[in-house]
Amino acid sequence: GREGKVDREFFDMFFDPRSIAVVGATENVGKWGFYVMQSLLEAREGRAIFPVNRRGGSLFGLHALRSLAELPQPVDLAVIVVPAPWVREVVREGEGKVRAYLVITSGFGEMGERGREEERELVRTARSFGARIIGPNSFGHLNARAGISTLAFVEKPLPGGISIASQSGNCGVYLVRRGRERGIGLAKFISTGNEADITFEDWVEYFFRDPETEIILGYVEGLREGRRFFELLQNGKKPVLLIKGGRTPAGARAAASHTGALAGEEGIFEAAMRQSGVILAEDLDELLETAALLLSEPAPRGRRVGIVTGGGGYGVLAADACEKAGLVLAPLSPKTMERIDEILPPRWPRSNPVDTVMAFFAAYRCLEILLEDENVDAALMIGGIGISYALQGSIPLREFLEKEEGRSFFRAREEEELEDLERVLEKRDKMGKPVVFCSIFSEALRGTRLYEAFRRRQIPLFSSPQRAVKALSNLIRYAEFHNEEAEGAGARRGREDRDRRA
Amino acid sequence: GREGKVDREFFDMFFDPRSIAVVGATENVGKWGFYVMQSLLEAREGRAIFPVNRRGGSLFGLHALRSLAELPQPVDLAVIVVPAPWVREVVREGEGKVRAYLVITSGFGEMGERGREEERELVRTARSFGARIIGPNSFGHLNARAGISTLAFVEKPLPGGISIASQSGNCGVYLVRRGRERGIGLAKFISTGNEADITFEDWVEYFFRDPETEIILGYVEGLREGRRFFELLQNGKKPVLLIKGGRTPAGARAAASHTGALAGEEGIFEAAMRQSGVILAEDLDELLETAALLLSEPAPRGRRVGIVTGGGGYGVLAADACEKAGLVLAPLSPKTMERIDEILPPRWPRSNPVDTVMAFFAAYRCLEILLEDENVDAALMIGGIGISYALQGSIPLREFLEKEEGRSFFRAREEEELEDLERVLEKRDKMGKPVVFCSIFSEALRGTRLYEAFRRRQIPLFSSPQRAVKALSNLIRYAEFHNEEAEGAGARRGREDRDRRA
Repeated sequence: GREGKVDREFFDMFFDPRSIAVVGATENVGKWGFYVMQSLLEAREGRAIFPVNRRGGSLFGLHALRSLAELPQPVDLAVIVVPAPWVREVVREGEGKVRAYLVITSGFGEMGERGREEERELVRTARSFGARIIGPNSFGHLNARAGISTLAFVEKPLPGGISIASQSGNCGVYLVRRGRERGIGLAKFISTGNEADITFEDWVEYFFRDPETEIILGYVEGLREGRRFFELLQNGKKPVLLIKGGRTPAGARAAASHTGALAGEEGIFEAAMRQSGVILAEDLDELLETAALLLSEPAPRGRRVGIVTGGGGYGVLAADACEKAGLVLAPLSPKTMERIDEILPPRWPRSNPVDTVMAFFAAYRCLEILLEDENVDAALMIGGIGISYALQGSIPLREFLEKEEGRSFFRAREEEELEDLERVLEKRDKMGKPVVFCSIFSEALRGTRLYEAFRRRQIPLFSSPQRAVKALSNLIRYAEFHNEEAEGAGARRGREDRDRRA
Repeated sequence: GREGKVDREFFDMFFDPRSIAVVGATENVGKWGFYVMQSLLEAREGRAIFPVNRRGGSLFGLHALRSLAELPQPVDLAVIVVPAPWVREVVREGEGKVRAYLVITSGFGEMGERGREEERELVRTARSFGARIIGPNSFGHLNARAGISTLAFVEKPLPGGISIASQSGNCGVYLVRRGRERGIGLAKFISTGNEADITFEDWVEYFFRDPETEIILGYVEGLREGRRFFELLQNGKKPVLLIKGGRTPAGARAAASHTGALAGEEGIFEAAMRQSGVILAEDLDELLETAALLLSEPAPRGRRVGIVTGGGGYGVLAADACEKAGLVLAPLSPKTMERIDEILPPRWPRSNPVDTVMAFFAAYRCLEILLEDENVDAALMIGGIGISYALQGSIPLREFLEKEEGRSFFRAREEEELEDLERVLEKRDKMGKPVVFCSIFSEALRGTRLYEAFRRRQIPLFSSPQRAVKALSNLIRYAEFHNEEAEGAGARRGREDRDRRA
């Protein structure tokens, strides 16, 4: 892309600093200076860590400096956790020795005009010797590939292609933690805090230019530079998924006392986002689930969904969810009907959703057939996944499994299912159509080889058909937007008219 | 209540049979006759189990009969899993020896008119000697307290007050499995199948009369006796929560080939349900989550919600969710403000949601204060739960925990939080106001003492603020409906007008 406002080298450094000072480091558990040190100690290799504490002495086996002025060398990053009244002095003490200040301390702009003035003063001071301020009131940042984190309450995330900018520390931590729990990999994360210097727009611009970021996620309450953000989105080539806090009057009032975001322009914001192809999610899980699908699946070429279910009720709920989301149940081609007739018992309903009526183990083969049907743009598999594992929880079955006969049955079934999955994924890639997997047994699968097969590829495994369909519909709308970008504005207007009628 | 259509003694027997025959029992893994036997063998104590298989011999260490005619004694229940063409003969062979046939075999009414005629014939045959048919095309049943189950793919559930009637086997199994995973206890479960004899309405009537059932959940696609169902609801005194499959044209088409439900009366159905105080859920998880809250929490007296959060963004999303659901953020009383001022740092936002701004461990005390505020009808706690456990996942912290200093810090914090929780629950009971708990760390808590403290009381622990608010809003609407029942129809109409305007 064209030259932006952000200095990419600075951001690269911030996300992979070689030397870090922590002002307010402490061994007192429960204090922020403890959490930050603990997180950083995990990334010690190859980096210099300098704990700073007025009392000096030794902290975590390291010599503690009394102030940044004592630093024996310049550092890339100083993390500040001391109380607000001391922060300005700390910044001054780093003059000429610190490139970036990550101010975790709160009690600035979110407190009112005096705090805002204090923030501006911090920025003026830092800028005067060529440094930048991140925050204040930031929760920290992380870089999964570099293995560095200043975040509390977060374990080592899986590396992946998703970067997150969040105007909320705890919503950000939710996304980081949940991503790990769900096997969804992250690139970089920043809790933007009060954005006294570096803004949400800057982080997003950087993520657009960062080669490790494939998808950008954001929690946003308010934008300082709405027009710039809109232009970034127009020029950016990566999917952007946002959740907007403060969409209702009650939420907007809460946001005002949180980030100071101004309310009253919801309609304008949403219209601008839609016009830019941004996916606006309803909740935090939807952000992650959609991003994971965007990364793991090919782009759908249309709205026609083929569904395989292990039972009627699931199919009915999925069909309801598709229709509500404006998706279409693909009419199956005669060829598909014939092929499925050969596999399933005669009482299968001979329509979409394809209910395998107890022939659970045939579900993957049905899925392959649907992917080959030219009427099908995307496939959804609900049920038929991991059944052999689900069985193992029952007590008498565990006894059976202790016999050689039982073990060999389940080993064979496990191999078969792993092969089934490989074949489906090959077919998916050959046909270039997305598949969404949903299993009633998703919890029971944890730790199994099948679970690892999904996790290794970071393919999300849904448990709720409604959530699966919602994420798929986001995928489809995103693809439509970008196809129409290519086709020109006329096609898009046609589609918008159709959406309005739906 | 008044005398209904159902013979309660028969249903009591069906859910706690002393003797059971399984026709089609087999040791072949993967066959239905294997799954049913496995499930029943768990409940063998005090019950006689008779495997029946044309080949005779020995099955699971038991003597296998060649037909029901060989039964040495009458049985309460015969479970049938043999192919459809043999079922009529099997029923005949049980003449005078079987009180209830649970027909799991499919391929009857769901296949069209010939199958429907065959079903009617089964019912005529069974009734001619005083027996009843459950199903066909049922997935089975269970009784958590009696410890008996004919369901495949299900582990022993936790006993509790929720009974479920489901017109879908797999949606039913989803509810049973997920209930167990989430620590939500069940009373009884029935997969109603094709309802050739005993209908969805019959099961619901029985659940209304069953003293072990406190709440009735249902997955429903179509009702045979809509008026009777409506009357049951009007007279019944237990909460009823339904999910309706086939609410859209696409879903209704899928339902037609599943249970043969007729489409086109969605509006009428929904209006009738609303008029009866039924909670209509959007997805299966919402059914369970709302039911769990109804069981664990006192009924709210109004819509004014007080929120405690461990950070601003969470509070903003919760406020948005409340407003969308028609709930009101309670204005905090001056007394509450003063009391919270004493606990939280001065920079807390002094409004609802109460953001504890880093003073995480004060969240429970804030919650207690909110419960005492006369402006607050219900409380929602997001964040501040289980923080000490969440920390333990980080690698350097684990090292710290291996030292005595670390262990004692966390042990003290754990005790403190368990006491905090007890105090909040006492306050909740004293004030008679519901509390909804939501934690970003819900996954990390599994297996901890805090987790067990929630689980022991079957208090749901949400991870998504949106889902927590949705369940709370169901609770509030249910309470409003029943308050207005007492107040009379005028008040209800007023409320409906207000809802329409919202």
